[in-house]
Amino acid sequence: MDMESDNKKWCLKGNKEFMAASSITVRGVLDMLREKLNPEDSRPLIPLGHGDPSPFSCFRTTPFAEIAVSDALYSGDFNGYSSSVGILPARRAIAKYLSSDLPYELSPDDVFMTLGCTHAIEILLAVLASPNANILLPRPGFPLYEARAAYSHLEVRHFDLIPEKDWEVNLDSVETLADENTVAMVIINPGNPCGNVFKYQHLQKVAETAKKLGILVISDEVYGHLTFGSNPFVPMGVFGEITPIITIGSISKRWIVPGWRLGWLVTNDPNGILKKHEVVDCLKSLMNISTDPVTFIQAAVPQIIENTKEDFFSNIVDILREAADICYNRLKDIPCISCPSKPEGSMFVMVKLNLDLLEGIKDDVDFCSKLAEEESVMVLPGSTLGFKHYLRITFAVDTSYLTDGFDRMKAFYQRHAKIQ
Amino acid sequence: MDMESDNKKWCLKGNKEFMAASSITVRGVLDMLREKLNPEDSRPLIPLGHGDPSPFSCFRTTPFAEIAVSDALYSGDFNGYSSSVGILPARRAIAKYLSSDLPYELSPDDVFMTLGCTHAIEILLAVLASPNANILLPRPGFPLYEARAAYSHLEVRHFDLIPEKDWEVNLDSVETLADENTVAMVIINPGNPCGNVFKYQHLQKVAETAKKLGILVISDEVYGHLTFGSNPFVPMGVFGEITPIITIGSISKRWIVPGWRLGWLVTNDPNGILKKHEVVDCLKSLMNISTDPVTFIQAAVPQIIENTKEDFFSNIVDILREAADICYNRLKDIPCISCPSKPEGSMFVMVKLNLDLLEGIKDDVDFCSKLAEEESVMVLPGSTLGFKHYLRITFAVDTSYLTDGFDRMKAFYQRHAKIQ
Repeated sequence: MDMESDNKKWCLKGNKEFMAASSITVRGVLDMLREKLNPEDSRPLIPLGHGDPSPFSCFRTTPFAEIAVSDALYSGDFNGYSSSVGILPARRAIAKYLSSDLPYELSPDDVFMTLGCTHAIEILLAVLASPNANILLPRPGFPLYEARAAYSHLEVRHFDLIPEKDWEVNLDSVETLADENTVAMVIINPGNPCGNVFKYQHLQKVAETAKKLGILVISDEVYGHLTFGSNPFVPMGVFGEITPIITIGSISKRWIVPGWRLGWLVTNDPNGILKKHEVVDCLKSLMNISTDPVTFIQAAVPQIIENTKEDFFSNIVDILREAADICYNRLKDIPCISCPSKPEGSMFVMVKLNLDLLEGIKDDVDFCSKLAEEESVMVLPGSTLGFKHYLRITFAVDTSYLTDGFDRMKAFYQRHAKIQ
Repeated sequence: MDMESDNKKWCLKGNKEFMAASSITVRGVLDMLREKLNPEDSRPLIPLGHGDPSPFSCFRTTPFAEIAVSDALYSGDFNGYSSSVGILPARRAIAKYLSSDLPYELSPDDVFMTLGCTHAIEILLAVLASPNANILLPRPGFPLYEARAAYSHLEVRHFDLIPEKDWEVNLDSVETLADENTVAMVIINPGNPCGNVFKYQHLQKVAETAKKLGILVISDEVYGHLTFGSNPFVPMGVFGEITPIITIGSISKRWIVPGWRLGWLVTNDPNGILKKHEVVDCLKSLMNISTDPVTFIQAAVPQIIENTKEDFFSNIVDILREAADICYNRLKDIPCISCPSKPEGSMFVMVKLNLDLLEGIKDDVDFCSKLAEEESVMVLPGSTLGFKHYLRITFAVDTSYLTDGFDRMKAFYQRHAKIQ
């Protein structure tokens, strides 16, 4: 080893901004919790912290999706580069898939293929980050938005979701926050982390508020169609005539294949306002210098959509409904946790922690750390999502894991309950 | 349609920076040339403009790679999210694959899986873009570096490659350009666009110059092992004891699967200098908030590497050698084009255009536009690569296309030759 190197002055440094930005992600917090796990606990880890049910056999994707991808791979026709907005057959298939729920037809030119929703968020926030611009994000929300906004130097302002009103958007706070530099507001529907599903009338009010403010609505519909309560999933694009909408989605959740990294970003803008303001040109320019989704997976999209049987979807929804019911009922056994609103969609529920009933637990992060350490159960502290004293619990796991997880949470509560 | 929308003031704008950044990419210029094509020309398009031979049957990837990916897909074990730096089996396999050519062992922790080299370049330039930093890029070069540096507000300074010296780096100009804010220099070996292969001694000098300047060397080895002349491929990591090196690579070119989007970024830094200066932490933080390579393709990496037969590699190299020979010999028939250095690697040759021998051709862009329009042959103007009056020609196409392309270029020359 060249010892001289150690004393040498190297002109090396990295951009430290990323460290702050990435410290608040779900991944970052789960990594921290994982380090708390007790390696001597022989029980299986109960992973209620993140939304990836793919390891559980009951959530295995449909064979038709696997066949479609394998066929595209073996054809040898899709080993080459994609075009920067995605290949036409994929964009055409997504336009058709989404149009069936809309009062107008999307064109393939409205569709931009992305590497999952993560990539769609990366691209979109970078494109909207013109100097002095700000964006309105929900609280609680999904912290990747905050992280990517910080990365792109896009100012963030938070509006609240109201737990007592099934996590509806506080539209008054949206109006108060917005100014002439506000470019967009984000909603996540079905809700992550809240498991709520917005009603048609509420979405219409969101669109009308955005119109009044002259801003874009970004609707994150990665959990689209995963609803199992009384409110059906209404795609925000339905209101594209009122205000310009960009929806983002992917096959990750509905087909349970988050690792396939296949998503989309879609302009729902029949009045052409985004095009007129050159937002579409900026999008295309950025995609032109960015990496693309895997070509053969894109090529499989038409077959994946066409060949998947309704049975597969309804079975997944049935499993989620049953899991949400178990979750909702078992939470009643744990006095320090209360559930403001029964989950009706996505894979999560957002619950309130009553620290007054616990002894020696400082806050939600401390609760989650000790729960990981003592019970090998992982749930996400609400602080990660901008909502202190709450927890996000994923119920999209095998039922036996779920009931085991609640048994352990109950035991944890009993051990830490304050003696009244 | 709501007519009011047209008169409304929308607070919408995109970040226009991307338009300038993306206008100089290979993709952008090829799109421009594609629009020049004459739709009435019934002859096939001869695509000598970009490096993607995958559509030609002689360049079909090995079935072992397809089988490995399909097996990983059908296992159902890799439908979930990857970890942010890539899954361990893939990182372990790449560490082993690269270590066999190095005087020390890489660890899986040195390897970060990326969505092809494009993504590695995105990540790397963003991480190095701390305030006031600058990076040294080769001219001619690969314009995605310039585009991503512009995106990340990283200042670019260009050093020259010397055509008369087999496109070696002008190390004097590197020393002149560097200052205390210089963080890294980039080399591309085997060369894109020049088709050169750097000698061991020259790479050693590059490392020593970088050490003297206290900067990192980024070695883009996406064409690694695709060499067919007298100089063997020497990975820059060989000199990791001298100065910290980051190599980037992928399966895109050696396995002819650019659409699979599977690459890597590797720290070759046995003295731990990058770690000490927190460059590695910044890398990890940014990858934590970025999208990942497809999990099942990552999972296939060990089998792809292990099962691919030497025959497959040597066959591809033989085809490229023959194509480079055809290209080099046929260029002699076209007096307005001269070749400073016979290509020995990658899929390209960089040739000089003598405009004095042509009538009515303004510059290299004009040459390429008219060639596309009149002969349906696409080659890349050197201006795109920072080198005016040059052309980059891809020879990685089926032989019949290549000879047809040169017939047409010769006819084009004869039609436009200046009458002396």
